[in-house]
Amino acid sequence: MTQAPAKPHRVVIVGAGFGGLEAAFGLSGAPVEITLIDRRNHHLFQPLLYQVATASLATSEIAWPIRYLLRDRPEVTTLFANVCGVDAAGKQVQLDDGGSIPYDTLILATGARHAYFGHDEWEPFAPGLKTLEDATTLRRRILVAFERAERETDPDKRAALLTFVIIGAGPTGVEMAGTIADLAKDTLPQDFRHIDTRKARVVLIEAGPRVLAGFPDDLSAYAQASLERLGVEVMLGAPVTECSADGVVFGDKRLEARTIVWAAGVRASRAAEWLNAPADRAHRLQVESDLTVPGHPDVFAVGDTVTIKGPDGNPVPGIAPAAKQEGRYVAALIKARLDGRTLPPFRYKHAGSLAQIGKKKAVIDFGWLKLRGSLAWWIWGLAHIYFLIGVRHRIAVAMNWLWIHTRDQRAARLITQGSSKVAQ
Amino acid sequence: MTQAPAKPHRVVIVGAGFGGLEAAFGLSGAPVEITLIDRRNHHLFQPLLYQVATASLATSEIAWPIRYLLRDRPEVTTLFANVCGVDAAGKQVQLDDGGSIPYDTLILATGARHAYFGHDEWEPFAPGLKTLEDATTLRRRILVAFERAERETDPDKRAALLTFVIIGAGPTGVEMAGTIADLAKDTLPQDFRHIDTRKARVVLIEAGPRVLAGFPDDLSAYAQASLERLGVEVMLGAPVTECSADGVVFGDKRLEARTIVWAAGVRASRAAEWLNAPADRAHRLQVESDLTVPGHPDVFAVGDTVTIKGPDGNPVPGIAPAAKQEGRYVAALIKARLDGRTLPPFRYKHAGSLAQIGKKKAVIDFGWLKLRGSLAWWIWGLAHIYFLIGVRHRIAVAMNWLWIHTRDQRAARLITQGSSKVAQ
Repeated sequence: MTQAPAKPHRVVIVGAGFGGLEAAFGLSGAPVEITLIDRRNHHLFQPLLYQVATASLATSEIAWPIRYLLRDRPEVTTLFANVCGVDAAGKQVQLDDGGSIPYDTLILATGARHAYFGHDEWEPFAPGLKTLEDATTLRRRILVAFERAERETDPDKRAALLTFVIIGAGPTGVEMAGTIADLAKDTLPQDFRHIDTRKARVVLIEAGPRVLAGFPDDLSAYAQASLERLGVEVMLGAPVTECSADGVVFGDKRLEARTIVWAAGVRASRAAEWLNAPADRAHRLQVESDLTVPGHPDVFAVGDTVTIKGPDGNPVPGIAPAAKQEGRYVAALIKARLDGRTLPPFRYKHAGSLAQIGKKKAVIDFGWLKLRGSLAWWIWGLAHIYFLIGVRHRIAVAMNWLWIHTRDQRAARLITQGSSKVAQ
Repeated sequence: MTQAPAKPHRVVIVGAGFGGLEAAFGLSGAPVEITLIDRRNHHLFQPLLYQVATASLATSEIAWPIRYLLRDRPEVTTLFANVCGVDAAGKQVQLDDGGSIPYDTLILATGARHAYFGHDEWEPFAPGLKTLEDATTLRRRILVAFERAERETDPDKRAALLTFVIIGAGPTGVEMAGTIADLAKDTLPQDFRHIDTRKARVVLIEAGPRVLAGFPDDLSAYAQASLERLGVEVMLGAPVTECSADGVVFGDKRLEARTIVWAAGVRASRAAEWLNAPADRAHRLQVESDLTVPGHPDVFAVGDTVTIKGPDGNPVPGIAPAAKQEGRYVAALIKARLDGRTLPPFRYKHAGSLAQIGKKKAVIDFGWLKLRGSLAWWIWGLAHIYFLIGVRHRIAVAMNWLWIHTRDQRAARLITQGSSKVAQ
């Protein structure tokens, strides 16, 4: 009689963003059974989400069905479900439909949402950008604003319709501002008869003293100058104190604007709450140096839902490469543990920071090398295409960028989820 | 003193589908001022809408911003607005925001919606397919059904989730049925762990005696046999008498199904009502032989919202080429009238009927030539790519079809407008 094979180690991964997916990839070949749970059916390439919001890319060009990405891994089961809690004592994940999924090891990669610093009432007026629906909502608002302006005869109302406010000058805010400016200045002018879309105001408001605070000073200054050359008005040191249907109040100024984009802050998922684990003010779970949750050696957390210090003493940034490194580390550590070994603590390696500024420039900080301008744009573009998954997505995105660069045509200028009757 | 130039003739076109857009194109060079009104911001290539509903194409690949298509025509103003009536005496079109647009000549190209023959209560259970939102709604329902089935343990409920009913076996119904079968049999099997998607039932129900009633008998028979080879169950002579959340009743049968697609009938827009004009049972306006509305020589109507007899005595079919011919005729007649001439009555020229059956076959009836099988598919595919507007759209669609044919990968398997919590 042969011995019954040992029951495989059950790994549950919650969230199929960069961190969770990378953990699943990294566990390839390990003697584990994986359940990958996400409340979406798709993995989203968030770094290009602002391009969906600005009509430059189609939704499907930056998203992949999660289960398709793991089709060749019979040991991985993908679940389209919503996790609402963790029973750490019983070692199971709770689903909001009443079900539960048992685990031996749990990886929480539940990400973050945009947050309003205690002003959730601003959300209807200043939507953020985290999901495909967020992006198509913003796209609709931006495009509808131009449509309404075309029909508006009152000059003040028309001006408010043609004023686009972006709150927060991190990479997303800078990228949104630059791309909306391009849209207004290069893509749309010839299409309208009653308005000059080039006169649209794009106002980037930042509470801090400079744009792209995570970049070196000189790149920040370059980014600001480049934005201003695109016509973006950059307002620094001006915290927003009010958002409403009429516009924003910042510093002592009131600005009438019908379109406001929130790019000012995020709040981590409820992972820390689920486990009663220590968290920072943005609800990011404070993990141990091996990315386990304090007191829960069999529970890992990775990506935007955690905070951990990097080798330079600063917190690891909430960017895709960091989440991927963490996911990969956790996969390696689980494999090591199954072999009876362990690994040295997680050590974040910062590959670089990138941000696009309008359609032809970018800034890149590799640490040892700083780049800006059109060479940086090419590196930015190639890097993003490289990190997309699959040939078809790469060709599609490259083709759309080619059309933007050569003809100022954008691939997805669609107002969906509502006809002309819809609220903006 | 030079004479003041004559005020240009004002043409208002309502609807930027195939008929309205073709009229606008055809009026190029005429001494007219055109206002093109649509409640959508995009022209939609409806013949491929079922491919969006089945995750094969992205929304933006079959849609174009209307004002972009007319950017080089300064005499054309595109309005994103909702027409709610026509004041024929005052010669103006009424908008639902209270505005009105005066015309000298009016072209109504307001299309049709799907209709439920007095059973509007079926719509929530059996959505139809006319707009991009209809398509993404159906796409969500189809994909969510597979996701739910993957998690369902009750065999009856699982079977209902894996049963897809299409009501109506015209081209749209046949194309939906064949493509859902392909999706279940070729695209999805490897991605699921608990269900065999190949066992999904696709049931095409038709009240009449054959599929593709507009085609010759032998092509109908071929289409039915091809569908059956794809695993589609074809139920003929079986009018549906009930649609509900549980499924459908047809003939004396009850079929449990969680996904129902309505492809059985259309109802014209309210154009006939607006003008108190004669209409048929489907509310299609009965136009004169020059496509004017009876009693309104300055009002034309074209496309799916009208009915007119073709040279063979049968009604002109509600297909894109017919709408385009009508739009082109009206443009030519307006030009002729402005020159003090007139034109002989509109004469429809039927170029052919096409329908795709699954991903590798089609039937084509040119009248003088009938084609079927894979040669027909190639002609079908090339014809559709040819009729798309612009190089980028053509490349994108061709690339997606290449991926479907060679790898069974579909471009847009996205569940949007709702996470796992959403109602199907």
